[in-house]
Parts: sequence; structure tokens; C-alpha cells
Amino acid sequence: MACTRREFLMRVGQAGGYGAAFLTMQHLGLMAVPEASAMPLAMETGSGNGTKVVILGGGIAGLVAAYEMGKAGYSCTVLEARPRPGGRNWTVRNGTKIEFKNGVSQTASWEDASYFNAGPARLPSTHKTMLGYCKELGVPLEVEVNTSRSSLLQSDAAFGGKAIEQREAINDTRGHVSELLAKCIRKDALDQEISKEDREKMLTFLRTYGDLKADYSYTGSERSGVSRLPGAGPDTEVLRPPLDMHALLDADFWQGMLFEEMFDMQATMFQPVGGMDRIPYAFAAKLGDIVQYGAPVQEIRKTEQGVRVGYTDSKSGATKTIEADYCICALPITILKTIPNDFSPRVKQAIAEVGYDSAYKVAWESRRFWEQDYNLYGGLSFVVKGPVNLLWYPSWKLFSDKGVLVAGYGVENYSEFGKLPSVAAKVDASRAAVEKLHPGHGKELKNPMYVNWGEIPYNLGSWVGRGPNYVPGRAMQYYEGPYKEFIQPDDRIYFSGDHCSHIIGWQEGAALASHRAINMISQRVQIARVSGAAKSQQV
Amino acid sequence: MACTRREFLMRVGQAGGYGAAFLTMQHLGLMAVPEASAMPLAMETGSGNGTKVVILGGGIAGLVAAYEMGKAGYSCTVLEARPRPGGRNWTVRNGTKIEFKNGVSQTASWEDASYFNAGPARLPSTHKTMLGYCKELGVPLEVEVNTSRSSLLQSDAAFGGKAIEQREAINDTRGHVSELLAKCIRKDALDQEISKEDREKMLTFLRTYGDLKADYSYTGSERSGVSRLPGAGPDTEVLRPPLDMHALLDADFWQGMLFEEMFDMQATMFQPVGGMDRIPYAFAAKLGDIVQYGAPVQEIRKTEQGVRVGYTDSKSGATKTIEADYCICALPITILKTIPNDFSPRVKQAIAEVGYDSAYKVAWESRRFWEQDYNLYGGLSFVVKGPVNLLWYPSWKLFSDKGVLVAGYGVENYSEFGKLPSVAAKVDASRAAVEKLHPGHGKELKNPMYVNWGEIPYNLGSWVGRGPNYVPGRAMQYYEGPYKEFIQPDDRIYFSGDHCSHIIGWQEGAALASHRAINMISQRVQIARVSGAAKSQQV
Repeated sequence: MACTRREFLMRVGQAGGYGAAFLTMQHLGLMAVPEASAMPLAMETGSGNGTKVVILGGGIAGLVAAYEMGKAGYSCTVLEARPRPGGRNWTVRNGTKIEFKNGVSQTASWEDASYFNAGPARLPSTHKTMLGYCKELGVPLEVEVNTSRSSLLQSDAAFGGKAIEQREAINDTRGHVSELLAKCIRKDALDQEISKEDREKMLTFLRTYGDLKADYSYTGSERSGVSRLPGAGPDTEVLRPPLDMHALLDADFWQGMLFEEMFDMQATMFQPVGGMDRIPYAFAAKLGDIVQYGAPVQEIRKTEQGVRVGYTDSKSGATKTIEADYCICALPITILKTIPNDFSPRVKQAIAEVGYDSAYKVAWESRRFWEQDYNLYGGLSFVVKGPVNLLWYPSWKLFSDKGVLVAGYGVENYSEFGKLPSVAAKVDASRAAVEKLHPGHGKELKNPMYVNWGEIPYNLGSWVGRGPNYVPGRAMQYYEGPYKEFIQPDDRIYFSGDHCSHIIGWQEGAALASHRAINMISQRVQIARVSGAAKSQQV
Repeated sequence: MACTRREFLMRVGQAGGYGAAFLTMQHLGLMAVPEASAMPLAMETGSGNGTKVVILGGGIAGLVAAYEMGKAGYSCTVLEARPRPGGRNWTVRNGTKIEFKNGVSQTASWEDASYFNAGPARLPSTHKTMLGYCKELGVPLEVEVNTSRSSLLQSDAAFGGKAIEQREAINDTRGHVSELLAKCIRKDALDQEISKEDREKMLTFLRTYGDLKADYSYTGSERSGVSRLPGAGPDTEVLRPPLDMHALLDADFWQGMLFEEMFDMQATMFQPVGGMDRIPYAFAAKLGDIVQYGAPVQEIRKTEQGVRVGYTDSKSGATKTIEADYCICALPITILKTIPNDFSPRVKQAIAEVGYDSAYKVAWESRRFWEQDYNLYGGLSFVVKGPVNLLWYPSWKLFSDKGVLVAGYGVENYSEFGKLPSVAAKVDASRAAVEKLHPGHGKELKNPMYVNWGEIPYNLGSWVGRGPNYVPGRAMQYYEGPYKEFIQPDDRIYFSGDHCSHIIGWQEGAALASHRAINMISQRVQIARVSGAAKSQQV
């Protein structure tokens, strides 16, 4: 499931949320509380004049850092290994090549309008920093439909394997739950818990909540959808009998059914018109030649007064170096493992400890049969069992003829999908999941594109998670240990990226981590300036 | 509440849905079953050649009829009283005049991009006919956000009157319900209802459903939102303590909270880009001078071979008549009451019996404080008590500076709002509802526009409902009696409009009613042709 990252974080935080767990750890004195916080940026224009900063990685963290520091007058250089900005923010279109470290290579052969976001694909309305950048940079947004009552849930264990509309599963479940609870109340089973005054209110509530009959029975609801739509003349609507609660329990739809309630999955959500990479390209347009593409970092060294970074200039093949007063290192931790560096032992140790998840997606071009034959526009459908657990329908260019269907989004490590022996087997599993939800339509899927972030050079993983060194039951390991090393500077090197935030795997985390890093640098520069001025006055 | 129409329909159908009630009536022999159904249109090109049809009313029903009959070769004229097409499908923009029968007149003085849909404003994904016309006519659609977890619920009876985010009310309610039901199961209060086998499954389900702790207690959930968003460095997310169930019962948020589950309100929904009237204008562009504007109908007469309709030509002021083989009468029943006619007694009686609701909306231009200060993009917020019960945020041009906020949508008849003594008092009540949900922002509302459909000439109401002759408890009256008179022809006059469908108040109902009417005419024309040919062969 796509939620593996979340599962991880939920384990980290247990029932109270990982934030709560983090706070608990702090209160127990198990964690150092770093000094600087991600305050709103308040750098004066010109306050960075004369200070050189080298920024490693042109993903969202690196781009945000260069953009904001540039406003304040810092002289920045971003070293980006690839010929494009964005890092994991990557939109695959006609002609895009996906090249794996293991030699697998695919090229998208799609219509011009077709695309899918191989990395982030959603902007929740609470991600104010990223939404703010879209506004500031003029990136048009549209609604990303993350919830649709017409989307489907499928389980081999119930309903003969037939996919069920979410409207039906959601509302029939609520109906049964309400009926059962009303029964208990009327049997006086909750007299301890519910006051006499609330008893009648609870029953009234449950009738509305579950759409119960006057006798508190649940016999189906229009909310669950119809077997015949209402029409003209004699064409009345025909309701469906409710799904049986016993069968619903067998089906075990719950994870998919409650997906929309996850805080960062809740409507309203957005996406840039034309692909998520419209954001890094908008930053890149502002930054111009501040970003050096095709410049993979080869070493990160400390000098007496700052940092020295060695990199390859891919055009000439020459090895070059750049010196700067400060470094913002916004490379994935997986990549830091491979780069010779002068990091202090505590940071080296932290880097060694961290493992990454390897997220994957499989995407197909197809006639929009989900719209044309199922009235299904955007949203996600879920398959309870199998290597591929979800379908994610495009929210862009709705009603057009063809679209790109993401059939499979999850992680390769510790998953059934990851154990499949070949790309062909993975693509087959993706098609099989579509067939389970939309029987007969598997054959309409064309030109699959499969991305596995663990195999993508310069990423080698998707986000901090359960890497190869993962010890089951030791889920707290990241926020407990390594995290605190990345959120404080190593001499003049400041780390950034979503892994320096509590919003792992989201662009918002990367942007806020860079805000925090540049706030820390800015404070240090101002203090140095003031103390420097004081010293020169003393002379 | 906006649901009054639905309340009515729900009363009509009681718990089983009005469709079910209708079917029951048919089975009991209480209703005639008309012969023709709204089959997909299958009229051959040219099959209408030589047949004249006069269509009364240029709303969606009239436009659909003229458009489809034109394809089949019928010679159509649409008489439309107003200078514009669309009827209740009316988009109010800068410069639009709203003139009431009682003399009240308002002109919108807004930014060019601002608008609101005074009539229909949503296209559910199940309304395939209307969505199909949008595609066929090239009307671009965008998502209408009908559900947002950031929208608000407010009750004077709880939480000190403070508005609560829907994510919080929805998920805390589900948490409490799950905790209570788990308690009952663990107390063996449901051993009769739940098998031993299902008992454990139910408990596992409730833990996921309600986000319960391992001991089945509900102590809050990230689903309900946070008091501090997660950020970078030490900035952990902070959860909110759960809302008290007792207070939730006092608040009585249920109608608003469950609004999104009403079948025809469920995501995914759409709206035409730029206003709902893009649909009638697209029909009108296809129809050209087939639609005669400024042509209010003055009389509807039967002739030996067809119909004769008298109307005023508003340009010249002259009274004119038009003769035709058939008439499709797509005027509101309220207007039919005022037009001299040759309808048969059964139809006259039906017309006399029907009452209309009078829907209203109040709309304001404002800075988008709901987006900028509340992260609230689209969706609806609800006020439990008071004359104005809902706010409907615009889904168009999200992130732009100004927008039009609909603050109040309901009916004037039998409502607290309708009893307010003046337009000023109604506008004040609208502002007060905004102030309840968004304290301090009432003063940002500018240039209100108030539409009351009962006061709009050529409509005099919004949809079949509880009119002046409404007898409480006699809610079945429309589908029981009058309806069956409108869904069969009166000689050569065929009725159409949403009132000839089971989708009252929706454009889909109007379109399907016209499909059905023209199918009936088409069959009659073909039969007449065949029998005419047979007769002439006999001669």
C-alpha cells in the first residue's frame, strides 16, 4: 500500500501520532532540543551580500534555499547531478526516459497530453508553504480529486470478489454500526457511559448518522447508491439492498475506506496544471544559471573558513571544485553514503544508520474507461490483497479520451510487489489489479512505465523508512537517533530535505527544512558580522 | 437549509427513497404506469422532416428538446420570454440585474471574474446526460469542490458557539461511536447479533474505524486535525484533544456533517468553467434563431391538427401566434397557472394542485478570507440554527484575490429566512451567518446580491415543493397525483421540465424529461406516417 511510509510513521508515533511521540521523547530528555526553529523567513534584502553558499541538490529543498537566499543577497550555486531540476519531483511524459541503476531502461511513448507524477503528486491544502510558492511563482493549480464516492474497493474474501463502490461500503458500514449501537443503547448496555439526558439524543443522532428506519433498523440507504438512477416519467430510482455486515468484515476494506480521512490526504487537495514538475521548473526559471545541471557531487570537504565541494562537470567531464562560506546539503541520505566527506563522526554514524524505503509506481496510458464506463473521475480505488493495492485515477484533463492510470503505488522493500522476480512480473501484477477492479479492461492498458526509486541514480530510495538495516520493532530509530544529527549544522554544513522535517516524503517538509536551515545561516552571518564589527571597533 | 427540496422528497418517499415509494404506489395500482420511458434517443436523421414543433420555454428542457429534434429534422421554434436562454440556469455577473416582481431591483457591481450561479450550480458525476451535453457542446468543466474537511460546522449550543472543522467533528464522532460500540461488544451486549467469529473481526474493525487505542479507547486522532502543523527541525505536530461526545450531541451538527453523503451531493462533482450558464449559451449558439427571445407565451390552444400558441413579440409589442403539429410545454407549472389554455380538465386540475418552493440565495463579493485565513478551498460550511444555515465557497479561480461567497441557500416558504421582514433584514442575516463561522470577517463582505425565485418573473418559484396550498402530512401529493398528468401528453401537447422527472430541481431531470417527450412524439410521428402510408396505399 501507498501508506507504508505512513504505517512507518504511525508505528513511530503509535496511537498518538509521531509528533506526540517526538514530544514525549523530548520531555523524557531522550532527545536534544535544537535551538533554531522554522520561523517564517525574515531575512533583510542585502543581508547575505558577500556570503557564498553552495547548495547540493536541485530538488525542492535546494531550489527553495537558493531562491530565498538569493532574495537576501547571498551568492548561491546549486549543484544538480541531473540535466533537470526537481529531484523526486519528476513528471514522466512522452519521451521521458526512466533508467534504472540495474540497466533497465524505459521510454514513455504516450500522447502529448499524457503524464504522471513519478514522485509527489498531491498538494494538501495545509501545505501552505508549497501553495504559497505556486502562487508566488505563478504555477497554476487545479483540484486533485483524492476522494470520490464512485471509486471502488475489492476483496477476494467477500462479494464474490466483485468490486464495491466506496459510497456503498462507507454508508452501509455506517448504517450497520449505527443500528448495532442503537440496539445496545435500547438494551441499556451503555447506561454507565451515557446519561439519561444523552440517551435520546444519541438515538436521534444514530438515526441520522446511519440513515436508520424509525425502529432503528438499517435496511439500506440512498447514500449507498442505486441500482437504477432516477429518470423521467415512470423511471424511479431503485435502491440497493444493504451489504451484509458479516461480508463487510470478511472484505476488510477498512484501510482503503478510511484513506480519505488521513490528515494529509483530506480534501481539498491540489496539483499543478500540467504536472508536478511545473513547480521546480518555475523555481529553475527564476534561478537561471545559479543552478548547474549535470554536476554530480564527488566530495564534500571542510576548510578553515568554509566548505569545498568537488563535482564533475558532465559537459566537459572535468572534475571541478567550488569553495563557499556555507553549504546547504540537500542530497538524499542514500547519496551521502556514497560521497567522500569530512562530516563529523556523529553525522557519519547517523548517515550509516538510516535506511530508505523504495517507493514504486506503475502507470499506463489508456482510454478513460473508468470515466466513460464507471462515472469515476479522479480518486483512488483499493484492492485488499495482492502485490498491487491501489489504482489512482488522473484528476487532469477529465473527460478527455485518454489518460494515465497509476496502477500500483507502494514500496518495494518488505512488500509482496518487491519480491516479484522481474519488471514483466511487476507490470503483469499491475494489470491484474486493474482487472480485479475493472474486469475486462486490463487489455485496454497500453505503454506501461514503471518507476522504482531505489533504482533511480542520484536518489537510490524515496524517503527515510525501513531500509536494509531495518530491525523490526525498532521503528523509532530515525526520530530517536539520526534525525537530531541532521537538524543541526556540522560546522558550516547545514542539512536540508524532507528528512530534516516531520513531513517526510512531502515537498512541504523539504521547503520548511530549507527555511529553517537558511534562518540558521542568516542568524550566524548576522552574529558574525556584529561581532566582527565589534572587534574592528576595538582595534 | 438547502436540503428542503430533499427533505420534501425524503418525506415523499419516507425511509425507502421516493423512488421506492413511487414503485410501491405503482404496484398497489394507485398510479397509472405511462407507456413511454426515457429510452436513449434513437431518432433517425430526417425522421422529423415536415413536422413543426413549438417549444415553450428556453430553459434546459426546452433547449435540449429543440437541439435533439433539430438533429432529426423537426422544424422547431422555442419561445423564450426573457432576452437570454437558460431559465433557472442563470449566472449572475458584473452588471446582471435581478428584478423582482415586487419591484425590488439589484444590479451586480463586481469584478469581471466574479460570478455566482443563482440556480443550479453543481453537476454530479451520475448526471450523465448533462455531462454528455457539456462534452458534445464543448463546454469545459472543472471540479466543483462539494466536500472539504477544512469546512466548518457551528452551533450556538456547544463549544461556546465556536465553529468546528468538519475533519474534527467527523472523526471525533466516529471515534466515540467506535469506542462505545467496542465497549458493548466487550460487555457481550451484542452476542445475539454478532457471531463469535465476527466478534474479534468487529473489534479489529472498530480500532481502525475509530482510530482507537489498543484498549479500545478513543483519545483523539490525527484525522481530526492538529493544533500545530508538523514542520522542520523540532517542530512536531501537536494533536488536539477530542471533542466531547456530550457536546457533539448538543451541537447537533449531523445534517451538515452528513451532507456530503447525500447521493446527489457526493464527490466527484463538476461545474462549467466560467459559470453554469455556459451550458444554455452553448445550446443557444447551436440553435441560433430557432430560439425567439423576448417572446412570453400568452395562450396555449389546441387546434384540429395541432396547437396554436399566442405570444408577445417584445421588440414590436405585437401579439403573434404560431401554429405547429406538436407542442413541448417546458414552462414551470407556476407559469402555466397564469396562461389561458385548452388543457384538458385533468391537467388543469393537476396544475391547480401543484405548489412550488421558492429557493433563495444570497451572494457577496469578498476577499477570499476563507482561503487565505482558513485554508478552506471550496466546500460548504453549516450553521445549525438561524435563518441562514450554510455558506458555499466558490470552487472557481481558487487562490485568486476575490471571490463570491454564497451565504445562504434555502427556501423562503415555511422558513425562518422567509419570514424576515425585508431585503435588508435578509442580507443582514446572511452577513450574521458568515460572522458566526468566520468571526470578524462579516465586514469584508461587499455588494450583496439576493435572488428569491418566487419573485423572479417567468419562474415564480424554484421547483415543485411545498407551495401555498401545502397541507402538512400530505407530502406524497405530487408524485401521487399531479405528476402522472404531466408525464403523459394532453392531445398534442407534451410537458417537459424537471417536474416531469424523478430528479426535481436538477438539470438532468429536465434533459431526461425532454428526451422522453421527444421519444413519445417521434414514435407518434412514425406511427402516423406508417398508418398514413397504409391508408394512401388503400386508396
